[in-house]
Formats: sequence, structure tokens, C-alpha cells
Amino acid sequence: MSADSPLRVGLLGLGTVGQGVLRVLAQNGDEIERRLGRRVVVTHAAMRDIKARRDCDLSNVTICASAAEVVAADVDVVAELIGGMQPAQQLVLAAIARGKPVVTANKALIAEHGNEIFAAAQAKNVFVGFEAAVAGGIPIIKAVREGLSANRIDSLAGIINGTSNYILTQMSRRGITFGEALAEAQKLGYAEADPSFDVEGVDAAHKLTILASLAFGTKLRFAAVATEGISKVLPQDIQLAQELGYRIKSLAIAKHAQNERGDTVELRVHPTLVPAEHLLAKTDGALNAIRVHGNAVGQTVFVGRGAGGDATASAVIADLIDAARWLAAPAQAVPYLGFGSGALKEARALSFDEIESAYYLRLRVADESGVLRAITSILADLEISIEAILQKEPGENEDATLAIITSQIPESRCSRALEKLGELPFVRAGLSRLRVEHFE
Amino acid sequence: MSADSPLRVGLLGLGTVGQGVLRVLAQNGDEIERRLGRRVVVTHAAMRDIKARRDCDLSNVTICASAAEVVAADVDVVAELIGGMQPAQQLVLAAIARGKPVVTANKALIAEHGNEIFAAAQAKNVFVGFEAAVAGGIPIIKAVREGLSANRIDSLAGIINGTSNYILTQMSRRGITFGEALAEAQKLGYAEADPSFDVEGVDAAHKLTILASLAFGTKLRFAAVATEGISKVLPQDIQLAQELGYRIKSLAIAKHAQNERGDTVELRVHPTLVPAEHLLAKTDGALNAIRVHGNAVGQTVFVGRGAGGDATASAVIADLIDAARWLAAPAQAVPYLGFGSGALKEARALSFDEIESAYYLRLRVADESGVLRAITSILADLEISIEAILQKEPGENEDATLAIITSQIPESRCSRALEKLGELPFVRAGLSRLRVEHFE
Repeated sequence: MSADSPLRVGLLGLGTVGQGVLRVLAQNGDEIERRLGRRVVVTHAAMRDIKARRDCDLSNVTICASAAEVVAADVDVVAELIGGMQPAQQLVLAAIARGKPVVTANKALIAEHGNEIFAAAQAKNVFVGFEAAVAGGIPIIKAVREGLSANRIDSLAGIINGTSNYILTQMSRRGITFGEALAEAQKLGYAEADPSFDVEGVDAAHKLTILASLAFGTKLRFAAVATEGISKVLPQDIQLAQELGYRIKSLAIAKHAQNERGDTVELRVHPTLVPAEHLLAKTDGALNAIRVHGNAVGQTVFVGRGAGGDATASAVIADLIDAARWLAAPAQAVPYLGFGSGALKEARALSFDEIESAYYLRLRVADESGVLRAITSILADLEISIEAILQKEPGENEDATLAIITSQIPESRCSRALEKLGELPFVRAGLSRLRVEHFE
Repeated sequence: MSADSPLRVGLLGLGTVGQGVLRVLAQNGDEIERRLGRRVVVTHAAMRDIKARRDCDLSNVTICASAAEVVAADVDVVAELIGGMQPAQQLVLAAIARGKPVVTANKALIAEHGNEIFAAAQAKNVFVGFEAAVAGGIPIIKAVREGLSANRIDSLAGIINGTSNYILTQMSRRGITFGEALAEAQKLGYAEADPSFDVEGVDAAHKLTILASLAFGTKLRFAAVATEGISKVLPQDIQLAQELGYRIKSLAIAKHAQNERGDTVELRVHPTLVPAEHLLAKTDGALNAIRVHGNAVGQTVFVGRGAGGDATASAVIADLIDAARWLAAPAQAVPYLGFGSGALKEARALSFDEIESAYYLRLRVADESGVLRAITSILADLEISIEAILQKEPGENEDATLAIITSQIPESRCSRALEKLGELPFVRAGLSRLRVEHFE
């Protein structure tokens, strides 16, 4: 293989991202050749629905009957853009077994089976790129893995699910309910018919799993992520949060600590109150934003498109270019997760019960005297400080609504407080609790 | 050299950044070893003032009498942290001549002599890293050079001079003048005794030169940057801009176009009105932010610390880690500017006169009837549309102030308009013009 011959790419899957790869390569082929010194060309592709209309030129692509055929074909790199577990995993492992570099956009696969895949790849010394698995339009994998490699990264937090962010943005701008915003998002194609993957936090949990390993040098462990969906957020919460100086965002949060208990990580996805002035609070619509805090750089924030064919294709092609450079000198490589495989730690993951956080509490209470005293007594007895409190004047014969921002406390203590508050005769059912992140 | 032996680093200069490198390596040495598989150790250092107090541990460092001695010593990588042109350039070239990888934080050197340095390095196949030269806390070099490598980048814009941004932020928050804000910044150590390098845009121009080459694949050409300082911005401009929905920021802007005139670039640094809702408008104080627009990803924004010993050290050490990986396999390397050296273009740089922009105009006019008609007639005759206009009610016997946002027009036409407006009998001296960027 001469360095000047084109890099031959085999595409597994020709959905949104696969078509994006072909389109971007067609559009930017010359510019990419100026960078790499050789062309990047899709020579083979496999697709499930051979008759579907596609928004790209396939005239120079050999369409194979099966994805396995593409893996076996005369291609230099395999790009897995099928998604899901099987057959994606088998195909990736098959490519690795043949010593072919693999580029994948499959966050679920890397989050749930990355440890095995990287072990297989390391044994064969094969490149695996997955920049497209998280926030396609933001080169966040490379930034965390290489750009911030001098740092001990203690936390990261991101808006990494466009659907949830779109829904919360619409709820916030127009005062509509979760159900209304979701129905709209589905109509516009921003949410799936079964939206649970996005709005319950599974998609973000996959991405968070990957980011946390890159940041902390810990093994991938998807099962360690604690998730809470956004469906329980009410327009009222968004309104109260705004009046208290916050926005509600679905955040994926990872924290790492080393102390007498050893290495612990928190991996969690949940609706979160974010100070209105923070960049993450201002990341609206389908945008993604990721905040990384390192002990040398302090806070960095990366913002860009999270999804979309061309943005994700951009990440896939950046990996293809890296794969081509790796092929020219396979001895040297950045470790898959940025840390030597032997150096990856097993960290204990904290459950929601074990974390500490500030909290937003919403209570509906009868409009009686002594209510505030009873509530604040319960909190004081549990050593929970009130950082902010807001009581809205009730209408005639209506209940009053009370919103409280607490100090940083163990979640278990917050749960205890909710229990006790719920027992008060004038507190109505439906107490609500959301976590607050101050990024300090 | 075994892969497990420490990477021996020679530091040229032990100022803020050099001390930061030692401090961060001491603090994060284990984490860095987990990433790289070997330790990174400063073994030699040279400094001008041997007696100055330093905030780092030098006990294991051999202090050399001259920087040249460090270059000649038994070190694997040389980190040039002296700054300025000479002797930095000679030392970098001397290291390259010895085949030693070089890491530098020297934006002036790379912007003004990068072409020669990269040519020399290429001839000897030597690694040169300069992530620390632009926005130390943001891994923007790698992001543009590798992360966005699938894109045709058409423009970028950044807040990349912390001093200017600090001054404008203070002016904006507290209504103080440029002179007052500058004096404060000097007192706090955020601005030099001679602040012209920062506030006249030279520092930002150095950084912009580098970013533009990485984005567009053009040769480095510092002389092509058109600059305008922030000293002429009045508190009144900031106030009027805010009322029109903008913030005033010192932006470094690079644009690339290909058309019948061939390849053209705009490289400019100047105070700019930015829509208040844009992330760049919200980047305050000493923070840096860079917006990159690629045709596949759309808009991406990177935010973080621009300066400071530890943030810049983070970038230096990330490059040291890359240098160590490169040493393990010197055959393969990302080109210095992301494009093959033979593929770098010479693009014609447009002067201010040749650019197009929207403009903010501020006029002080006598409080007479017919004034607005005369002004709008001049603009209409020159085919300049008014996108927004704001006239403040004057006090008794005072002049009225008028602020206008124009449509996108050639700057030459804007100058013509200013000339004509200045000739009107009721327009006072001191017309002001600032450029407006909408990021569309």
C-alpha cells in the first residue's frame, strides 16, 4: 500500500450517519486530501434496506449483500455505523480479528462492550476510533483523551442528549408540559416513537460512561450510571427554578474522588438545576455542551451539535484520518481510553443514596399559619441549611407553593427530610425533589 | 531508551509557565504516567534570573548556565518557554538541528517564524508542538488540526486576549472608561506596564495567525492581520450596544473564501459588536472562547482559561506527552499545521478596506428637525440599509446621540458614508464606527 493510494473505507450501515460520511467526503474530499496526503474513499458499503432513498452518491461504491462481506472485502478501515449491540459487536470484533482498524459511532456498544473490544484490539494492535460516539459535532473524545492529558480531571458535566434538551428548552420557553413538548419533538422527528432511550437518560448514560473512563482512567461500566428521566419535571418547576436564578437541564454528571474509601466515581444522569449564568444553562435546543474540570486548566466548556448526519460524519471522518495515520506507523498509538490498559482503575460507583448534592424541593402546602416554621424546623433538625426559599402567594382558597434550595447534603438526608415533610398534615402529596449543580 | 524510562525534559525559561510545568508535573505525575506509561520529568532547566523566588520544587533539576546548554544536554524533549524572538528562535532551531522534539508556548515565534521553523523540523523529521501558544486552557490547536479535520472551515472568531476582555468586561459591568479599567488591570497584574501588545491587538493577532493557518491550510502570515485596538471604545458605545442587543468584545476573526478572485482570507482583530445572546458575548473576564465554523459540524465553541501558569502548563505537558508518543514512532506524525507542508496555500489577505461587514455607527447631532432625514438619505443613497437605529433623548440644550446598525456592506462604502455624514452641518466631530459580527 503506497502512502499516496486512497484510504479505502468500508461502511457498515448507510443510515443518516453513513450517508453523511459519503456526502462530507464528496464535498470536502480535496481539503481532506490536503490534510492527509491521500484521498479517503468509501469503496464498499452494506445496508439493510437496499431500496431506501439515499441522499448521497453511491455510484462508486460496491454495495455488498452483507456487512460481513464488507469486513472481509479489500478495505483499509471499517466504519461501523449500524448501531445497537448485534450484529455490530460481532462485526467490529471480526474486523479487529482481521487486523483492520475500526471506526464506530456506536455509543451503546462502546459503553457496554468497550472493555472487551479494546482488549481484543490491543491484543492485535489495532486502531479503534469512537469520536462519533459522543457529541459528534464536538471533538470531545480527543480533547479529554489528549488535549487535557496533563490534568487530573475531577468532574465533568454535559448536556449530551439533544432530545431531552430540546424538550426542556421548549418547556422553558413556552411553558408547555413535558407531554406536549415530547409530542412536538416526535412530530418534528427529534424524538423517537419510543422516546424512553432519550428522555429516561439511557442514551446520555452511554455517552457518560465513555467520557468518565476517558476523564478518570477507569474501566467502562455502564451499569454504574444512575439515571432519572425528565418526564417528572413540571412547567411549574421550570418557572420556580427561573425565579430562583436557575435553569433546568438534563445533565450527565461524572465525579471522581480519592479518599480513605479508595477511588469512587459518581455517574449520574438527571434533570438538574443549573445557575442561569452558567454556559450550560444557556445551551439550548439540540445543542450539546460539555464542561470538563481539570486541576491544571480549571473549567473548560465545549459546545456544538450533538447529532445530525453531517456533524456525526465529521467525527467519523476525523477518526478515519487518524486511522490512516495510524496505519502508516502502527507501533505508536494513543491508548483507546487515553490510559494504558493496565493502568485503568476499577472505581467504586456511588448510588444516588450515597451522593451529596444541593437540592431543590417543591412543596404544595395549605395556606395556614405556622407552616413555614414547621418545615424549617424539620430541615434545621436534619442540619439542612436553606440557601434560597420562594413562596408564591396563593390564589383564594388555593394551596401555597414553596420552593427551597438546600445546602450541599447527603442525598440520604434529603430523602429523610422529604419523608418527614410528607408527614406534616398541611403538606400535600406530590413533593418534588431535583438536584442542583453549582459547578464550584 | 526503554519505553519505560522517564521522558527527560529540558526547560528553557522558568517564568510563570516553566514553574507551572514543574508544579503540574509534581502534582499529576502519577496520573500522567498512567496515561503515557512512563514518567515525564524535567531534568534540566535554564533561567535568566537564577535568584528569583520560584513556586516549584527544583531539587531534582540540573540548573544550566545557559539555555543552549539545556538544548545540548541529555534531554529527550526541549520546552521553549522564554518567549519573544531571540534567543528563542535560535534555540528552537538548535534543538531541531539535533533532532530533538520541541514544545513551545511562543505564539509570536510561531506566528512570525513558524514557516521556517516547520520547514527545518520537517527536513529533520522532528516533532514541534505549540498547543500552549494559543489559549493554554483550551486544547484548540488539536481540536482544529485533528478534531475538525473532516471540515472545510470557513471562519473562526475568538476572544483570545484576556487583558482586553478583562478591560471590556469591567467597562461593561461598571460603566468605567478604558483608561480607568486599564489602570485597574495594571494594578492587579492583568495588564503590562506597556499594555499596547494586548490592547492594540498584537497578541491576539499572533494567535489568530496560527489558528487561521490550522483552519484554512494557509501559510502563516502575521503581517496579513489587520488590527484595531480597544482604546477608542467609549462607555457610551458599550451602553448603546447593550440597548441594541449587543456586547462589545475584542474579537480575532478569520474568514476564508474561494471565488473568482482565488483564495482570500480576512484576518482581523478589532472591537466588535456581538449579539448579546451569543456564547462569545457571554465570555467575560479573563476567559477565552473560540468559535469555529465548519461546513460539516456547523458552529462549535470552545471556552476556557487563556492564560495563567497552570493552564498554559497543561498545554505544554499535553504536547510533551504527544512528543513522547511521537518519539516511540517518529515515522508517523500529524503535519505541524494539520495540512501537508506542500499543500499549504498562499491566500491573498484582504485589508480592512476590502472586507464586508455590518457596522455600528455613533453620531452626535444637534437637536434639530430634519437631522434624521438627512442622515438616512445619505445612507439610502449609498445603498446602506439600516438594521436598527436608536436615538437617545437629549438633555436640555444638549446634542442628541444616534446609534445605527447597518446591513452587511463593503467597508469602503461605510467609510464613504462616514465622510458624507461628517460633512453635515449638524453632525458633531467624533463619529464612531465599530464592526458588527452576527455569526450567520
